[in-house]
Amino acid sequence: MHSTTDQEALDAALTLIHSRQYISPKWLGDPGPDAEQIEKILSAAGAAPDHRRLTPWRLIIIPPERRHLLAEAFAEALVERDAEATEVQKHEARAKAARGPFLVLVVARLDPELGPIHPQERIISAGCAIQNMLLVAHALGFGAGLSSGRALYSQQMRLLFGLGAHEQPLCFLSVGTVTRRKAARPRPVMADYTSTL
Amino acid sequence: MHSTTDQEALDAALTLIHSRQYISPKWLGDPGPDAEQIEKILSAAGAAPDHRRLTPWRLIIIPPERRHLLAEAFAEALVERDAEATEVQKHEARAKAARGPFLVLVVARLDPELGPIHPQERIISAGCAIQNMLLVAHALGFGAGLSSGRALYSQQMRLLFGLGAHEQPLCFLSVGTVTRRKAARPRPVMADYTSTL
Repeated sequence: MHSTTDQEALDAALTLIHSRQYISPKWLGDPGPDAEQIEKILSAAGAAPDHRRLTPWRLIIIPPERRHLLAEAFAEALVERDAEATEVQKHEARAKAARGPFLVLVVARLDPELGPIHPQERIISAGCAIQNMLLVAHALGFGAGLSSGRALYSQQMRLLFGLGAHEQPLCFLSVGTVTRRKAARPRPVMADYTSTL
Repeated sequence: MHSTTDQEALDAALTLIHSRQYISPKWLGDPGPDAEQIEKILSAAGAAPDHRRLTPWRLIIIPPERRHLLAEAFAEALVERDAEATEVQKHEARAKAARGPFLVLVVARLDPELGPIHPQERIISAGCAIQNMLLVAHALGFGAGLSSGRALYSQQMRLLFGLGAHEQPLCFLSVGTVTRRKAARPRPVMADYTSTL
């Protein structure tokens, strides 16, 4: 039997999890999280499951004054995969780097020498860390969203972020104040994804 | 400025995330979650980020009356990788299938025909779904833990669970009443895994 306080904690957890929604970096404006809020968001990552305690992922903050480097990497990655990209397309690629007041790259550490943990298990740990960060950003009243795309997997990105041979970029995480919110989209329900052996 | 209620919701989220700890299936006893609690736990998975709405993972519950099939698969997988496994080792492999009153297998759906989303991004979605389930189990007062191991990746497991060619078992999730709790282990702190471009 749950006490009233336990019931409140449960309700808070369910509300937090189910009311979170993806916000496109396009619709994330100022103010972003301050230093104390950033610490709350990023510290939540450290509470993710981590088999054998490898910390098999890391985070790289891209501060406003370094966004121009990311913008160039986006444009170069575009040109490399499409030599005929137009100026408008290059401009759009660059513009993506400016979106969202707080931006972090999540990187998986897949080096076998870290320990005998399967790469997919390390990416699951990163996923758990990401969800913790999304939930804390939401609890702080911010919007947040993950983004990926072909440039993420480009050589330009590896060079810019100094990734090691066994490191793999997973996604960007953007956090900011919601400037436009779409209607909540329908979620799959348990019966859609659950069966019994 | 946060209102009192917002502050309480934030505190609740941080407490939930940071107080959760791994509990070995060995130390998860009866009672397990009832039908209503199971629905709360598994429904939380559906609130994970899901780029292009593929639902790129699924859950398979292994009920008590089917645990003997899992036990045999564990023993067969052991014999296949070590033909000289002893009876004691086979007994131990079988015993693992009985642990934890509630047991679910998480499976990634990596079929390219589902949509143009990179496999690692699908596994991140599964990781987010897993963290949501762990947090709700914790909020309900249960202990929970993920487990993997070589048997997970065996042909026996694929056959038992009827996995498709593009499906990949990710981990088991066990939930139950904590019968023994170890001291909380130290977590990495933000500075351990964060840098700035």
